[in-house]
Parts: sequence; structure tokens; C-alpha cells
Amino acid sequence: MATQGQVITCKAAVAYEPNKPLVIEDVQVAPPQAGEVRIKILYTALCHTDAYTWSGKDPEGLFPCILGHEAAGIVESVGEGVTGVQAGDHVIPCYQAECRECKFCKSGKTNLCGKVRSATGVGIMMNDRKSRFSVNGKPIYHFMGTSTFSQYTVVHDVSVAKIDPTAPLDKVCLLGCGVPTGLGAVWNTAKVEPGSNVAIFGLGTVGLAVAEGAKTAGASRIIGIDIDSKKYETAKKFGVNEFVNPKDHDKPIQEVIVDLTDGGVDYSFECIGNVSVMRAALECCHKGWGTSVIVGVAASGQEISTRPFQLVTGRVWKGTAFGGFKSRTQVPWLVEKYMNKEIKVDEYITHNLTLGEINKAFDLLHEGTCLRCVLDTSK
Amino acid sequence: MATQGQVITCKAAVAYEPNKPLVIEDVQVAPPQAGEVRIKILYTALCHTDAYTWSGKDPEGLFPCILGHEAAGIVESVGEGVTGVQAGDHVIPCYQAECRECKFCKSGKTNLCGKVRSATGVGIMMNDRKSRFSVNGKPIYHFMGTSTFSQYTVVHDVSVAKIDPTAPLDKVCLLGCGVPTGLGAVWNTAKVEPGSNVAIFGLGTVGLAVAEGAKTAGASRIIGIDIDSKKYETAKKFGVNEFVNPKDHDKPIQEVIVDLTDGGVDYSFECIGNVSVMRAALECCHKGWGTSVIVGVAASGQEISTRPFQLVTGRVWKGTAFGGFKSRTQVPWLVEKYMNKEIKVDEYITHNLTLGEINKAFDLLHEGTCLRCVLDTSK
Ligand SMILES: NC(=O)c1ccc[n+]([C@@H]2O[C@H](COP(=O)([O-])OP(=O)(O)OC[C@H]3O[C@@H](n4cnc5c(N)ncnc54)[C@H](O)[C@@H]3O)[C@@H](O)[C@H]2O)c1
Ligand SMILES: NC(=O)c1ccc[n+]([C@@H]2O[C@H](COP(=O)([O-])OP(=O)(O)OC[C@H]3O[C@@H](n4cnc5c(N)ncnc54)[C@H](O)[C@@H]3O)[C@@H](O)[C@H]2O)c1
Ligand SMILES: [Zn+2]
Ligand SMILES: [Zn+2]
Ligand SMILES: [Zn+2]
Ligand SMILES: [Zn+2]
Repeated sequence: MATQGQVITCKAAVAYEPNKPLVIEDVQVAPPQAGEVRIKILYTALCHTDAYTWSGKDPEGLFPCILGHEAAGIVESVGEGVTGVQAGDHVIPCYQAECRECKFCKSGKTNLCGKVRSATGVGIMMNDRKSRFSVNGKPIYHFMGTSTFSQYTVVHDVSVAKIDPTAPLDKVCLLGCGVPTGLGAVWNTAKVEPGSNVAIFGLGTVGLAVAEGAKTAGASRIIGIDIDSKKYETAKKFGVNEFVNPKDHDKPIQEVIVDLTDGGVDYSFECIGNVSVMRAALECCHKGWGTSVIVGVAASGQEISTRPFQLVTGRVWKGTAFGGFKSRTQVPWLVEKYMNKEIKVDEYITHNLTLGEINKAFDLLHEGTCLRCVLDTSK
Repeated sequence: MATQGQVITCKAAVAYEPNKPLVIEDVQVAPPQAGEVRIKILYTALCHTDAYTWSGKDPEGLFPCILGHEAAGIVESVGEGVTGVQAGDHVIPCYQAECRECKFCKSGKTNLCGKVRSATGVGIMMNDRKSRFSVNGKPIYHFMGTSTFSQYTVVHDVSVAKIDPTAPLDKVCLLGCGVPTGLGAVWNTAKVEPGSNVAIFGLGTVGLAVAEGAKTAGASRIIGIDIDSKKYETAKKFGVNEFVNPKDHDKPIQEVIVDLTDGGVDYSFECIGNVSVMRAALECCHKGWGTSVIVGVAASGQEISTRPFQLVTGRVWKGTAFGGFKSRTQVPWLVEKYMNKEIKVDEYITHNLTLGEINKAFDLLHEGTCLRCVLDTSK
């Protein structure tokens, strides 16, 4: 390849400061070092975690940086020692790494690989603890080990899932975050059984993916809860078969759900990021066995609480990151499921824009009508 | 039997008011009605739940009442329709009922039977929603559906475990609460696997039973944590093989345990009833899989809290009541295990007194040297 070993200059959306519009810049992307992969990003979607860090509320957010973590592309070149992928492979960069060697990967109990966290958590690469991005010689931080709001990015090889080359990248980019998170919360974390009653708090992309996961798991009642009643129409398509708007009730929402379900649901999922809803989600679970899974990411510093009696009487409180999926192993499997029409993806895409329109895409995130907006990075 | 169908007058320790010494009284015990069993209690131990209600801190505590819920005795007579036990059977009254018919019992997921709760929760019997105890015609409330601080008590048939008649009642009375709670927290609720690292907060009877359960489950490191360093000597006999006194450290205890265990324990158990220790117990669990079980009962109104990130990164928060054991089915099985020397019981008994000395026994509960005090109710 002509670009291999060379610095690539390309367009990227740089977040210079919290809450200030992103700037489309000519960015220099250094070649991948040992154990690294440079990817040409073709499509990237936006997720609330991007907006959270961009807003400045994330105390670990580092600026200037290149955000983005839900994307798909093609390997441009690989660094020394990389064997898992090669130039031309179609890939999804994964913010959850999977090294298959660390204590976490080997435990068989979690998808939270520890291999590159010490670098990805602080916006750099492991090899030299530096960034591969710069603008006029000034380094720009990486984000979540992915930084997909760029035409080219460099990631650790343990963070690259190689997928079916015939899969449409403008669709399967969604399999980098929100959709797997919801499906996996049901399949891997809660392990919902046929006939279960399920409550889903928040019917955004993540909540809808939970609904779809619950439906395929055979749940019978799938109760969607959202403060925006317009969400029900779409949610029906994903499996939600009852809807409650907390605003229509004077009682706390947990009581409403307990009454509706003769004692509470078998499983509940918080897909908003609101700590008081997290409490409600736990407390609407059935005594003796109800399990609540926290999927939403709360603002830093906020805490959840409840009476310990809730747990002593048999409720279980859990959480999930990337739905418990092992990224390199299972993202390709999810792509297959999509190709076999076993899971939805297209249905979450409500908007298509270009990288150049990214600030408009951020605005859309706050509009009730937007689930996922996919950006074409070539423009 | 001479007493069958008759009111029995016998000695009982009546709690007339919170925090006032119990009074040994002549109490009238009415005959068992339909679905009820009258038991001659031979031995009863004291547990912190008795002291909690007696102290007046339990908002659901009703006075005057007869406390006590860890005991053994012999069936004196049974009411109409009772088929599970008959006069002369050796039994352990169980505060957790097991009807085998209700939604809870049939779920296969919990031991929290719902059949008689609406009565036992308010100190009465289901059949006529009245008490079987009185003093000079004035009713005395039942407690936890057991009221074992009496020479005779009446309980619901779904709350009676029939045991091996050769088992020593002055020992197996302990299988009515504390010991099964600790063992079951490990075996049923946490399901500790061989090789696991375990942290136990609080080395009273419940914590020691957790240690024993963890040892038999094959745990490798069993770390006991107590503010009383004298507890370690005894705890070693129950399987604790490391000890930490939080007072010896400036750092929060969760950090001490995380450092000691290269990232945290696989399982932790709170056996104190202190909400800040409950938080520490969760937060000393290993990222990705660590599970914390709340066993201690906190004072009413107190709440647990943590950052939701603790759960999103894979920790699980649970609780247990009576260790998840199905009382009628599994208490007899625990008695067998004791008879086969597979579980300890004698080792928890540090004191033996008589029913007449019950106030002294309550004082002992607050002394570090007392695990369980067994009362001979004949005196
Ligand atoms: N754990 C993970 O690995 C992971 C991965 C991706 C996203 N997330 C998090 O999941 C959450 C949901 O993401 P999304 O993209 O679906 O968000 P979204 O904003 O599209 O959806 C949230 C929904 O919640 C509703 N809502 C807001 N407040 C509510 C309330 N009090 N009661 C009921 N409904 C309420 C909104 O109307 C909206 O429909 C976010 O916190 C995101 O950061 C977590
Ligand atoms: N969930 C259930 O079904 C169930 C059943 C029985 C008992 N319990 C509860 O279990 C708890 C323990 O019962 P027990 O009989 O073993 O009590 P106990 O008082 O004998 O033991 C408590 C131990 O905790 C230690 N301790 C106190 N504060 C501490 C702190 N801050 N840090 C570390 N150690 C501390 C004490 O020194 C003592 O050794 C009680 O809350 C009791 O009500 C629950
Ligand atoms: Zn995301
Ligand atoms: Zn790993
Ligand atoms: Zn007890
Ligand atoms: Zn029952």
C-alpha cells in the first residue's frame, strides 16, 4: 500500500474544548506501531458516551481529542507483530478490547479485558504511551481506544474485530456499541428465560435493543417505560408490548410496575443513566428473584442507593458493559446474525449525515426522533 | 395426649416494652387451630434479630410479644388438617415457611414462601388472625411466626421442619437461624467455587458459618475482617485463614482488601448489618465478576449506596434470607449433615443458660466472647 509506513493526513472532527463545536481539521495520523492497526473509517455513528465526554461532565475526558466509538472500516496497514488482521480486512474497532491472555479474558467470567486499559483510559497508545494523532505537530488524544470521528484511526490489535467483508459497513458500524450493549444485557448479563416479565426503562437505541433481546429470549411481557410517549410506536417493532409513561402516574414508577405485574418483574433494565431510575428499576423487581441490570451510564459522582432489605429479600443488582460481549470473538458473530436477518440493525438508523455535518449530528442526539445517526466519513 | 385440645399454661419470657427486661410469666397457650402445630420447646438460642426487635429499633416490632426464633422441640398436638407432623415428632420451628404451593415456593428460584407472611409479619396466626398467646386474657403477639422463648408455642404447619429424633435438640436448635444463614449464603446465594477468594465482614456466628461454608466449597483464601482482633483465633477453626482488622489501617477497608488480593475478592459477605460495611464489601470485589452478598440486617431506614460504575464494571450485589434454604425440606437435611459430622454446630455454642436467665443471655449477646447462648426452657 502506498500509505503504509507513512503519516496519513486526513479529515477528522477534533474536540478542542468541552461543549464547543467540533472542528473538522486536517489531522496527521502516524503509522501503527507494534501491536497496532491503522483503520480507514468509512462510517461512524454517534453514541451518548461521545456526547457525555464532549459535554465536559466526564472527569476523565481529555482535550483536545478525537471522539467516536461506533464505527466500521477497512484495515489500511498493521504494525509489527500483528497477526489477527491484515490490510484490506473489514473491521469494527471495539472500545472493549479482548486480548485472550489477561486475567480478565482468561477468567471466563467477564468481557472486561485489562490489556490496554492503562493506555486507552488516558487517551494514548500502549507501545510508546503517546498519541498517533496530531495537528501541526501538536498531539490530539485518543478516545476509548477507538477515535472513529476520523477518516483514519489507529487502535490496538486486541481492539479490532474482523468481520464478514460482504457486510454493509454503513449498517454494521452500529454493532460497535449500542445494539450489542442492549442485546447482551439480556442474553449475557440477565440471561432472561422464556416466559419472563421484563421492564425496560428508557427506549432509546439501547433500550430498544434490550427489547429485541428480550423478545428473542422469549420474554412474554415486555414493558417499556419512557417519559416520551411517542417512543411506544417505534418500540412495538422491537418487541415492547406494554408501555408506561411515569408522568401519567402520581405513584412512584416502581409501585406502578409492581402493581401491574402482581409483585414485580423478573428482569429490569435501566437504559437511561439516571440514578433515581436505577433505584426504581431495582425496586420494581419481584421479591425472591427479580434481577435488575444497570446499562445506562450515570454522570460522574452520582450514586445509587436503596434499602438493603431489597437485596436481602432476593433481588439482584447487576450492571453490564458492552452487554458482556467478548468483542473480537462476538462482534463478528453479531454481524453474522445480522446478515442472517436474526437481529435488527437498519431499524435503529434514523439519520444519515456526513462527517462534515457532525455538529448537526450531536444536536440530533438530543432530539426524541433520533435513534442512531450514521456519518459517511468520506465527506 | 392429656393436653391436646386444652389451653396450656406454661412459662414464657414476655417482652412487654422495648428495651425493658423480659418478664418470665405464666402464659396461656391456646390449642392449635386448623393448619397449626403446638410445639413443646426444649431449647432455644438467641439471635441478633431478637435483640433488634427487643431494642425497639424495629419499626415493625409489636409489643407485648414473645420473641425467639432459633429453637428445637417436640410436637405436642396438631390442629385440623395437619398431615406433615404429628404429636411426638422432633421439630425445628422455622421463621421462613415453606408451603410448596405458593408462587414463591413453586418458582424454584427462592426460599421466601409467601403463604403465611401476612400473619407472621403482624404477630398473629392466619386462621382467625388472632394470637394463641395470652396472659390473664390479654393477647401477647407472636414474633417471626415462631416465638420460641416459651415452653410451648403455636406455629403454622408450613413452618415446621421434622427432624431426626435422635438429633440432640440442645445443639440442633441452632439450625433454626444463624448457622444455615451463613452456610446457605455461600452455597445457595453466592455459589462459591473451589479456588475462590472470599472476604467475610464480621466474625460472629453468621460470619463463622460463612467461613465454614466457604471452606467446604473449596475456597482458597478466606479473609476474615472484624474490628475485634480476638475473633481471629476462633475463626481459624471455621476456615478463616487470613485476618484484617480495619482499625489497623488508615485506608478504607475496601482498598486494603483490593490490594491484598490483586484486584479484589471473588466473593464477599457482610455479616454485621452495617450499611457502610455493605458498601465496602461490594467495593472490595473484583472487577468483572466479584459478587457481594448482604447477610447482615441493617437498622430500619438505613440505605446502601455506591457508584453505579461498580456494577457496570461487573460486580454483583445480592442478599440472602435464611441462606436461601427451603426450611421444611432442607433443615432436616442440615440436621443429617450435622449428625454425619459434615457441618459444625456444637462449636458455635459458647454459653448455656435457662429460660429464667434470659435477660442475662441478652446481655451476653453484646459481649465479644459470646457466639450462641442456648437456653434450657425447662428451667
Ligand atoms: N453500559 C454500556 O456498556 C453502555 C453502552 C452504550 C450506552 N450506554 C448508556 O446507555 C444509556 C442509553 O443510551 P441510548 O443511546 O439508548 O440513549 P437515549 O438518550 O437515546 O435514550 C434514553 C431514553 O430514556 C428516556 N428517558 C429519559 N429520562 C427518563 C426517565 N426519567 N424515565 C423514563 N425514561 C426516560 C428518553 O426519553 C429516551 O427515550 C446512556 O446512558 C448511555 O451512555 C451504556
Ligand atoms: N439475612 C438473614 O437471614 C440473617 C439471619 C440471621 C442473622 N442475620 C444478621 O446477621 C448479622 C450477624 O449476626 P451475628 O449473630 O453473626 O452477629 P454478631 O454480633 O455475633 O457478629 C457481628 C461481628 O461483626 C463485628 N463487627 C461489628 N462492626 C464491625 C465493623 N464495622 N467492621 C468489621 N467487623 C465489625 C463484631 O465485632 C462481631 O464479631 C446480624 O445483622 C444479624 O441480624 C441475618
Ligand atoms: Zn456507546
Ligand atoms: Zn484481556
Ligand atoms: Zn436469627
Ligand atoms: Zn410457599
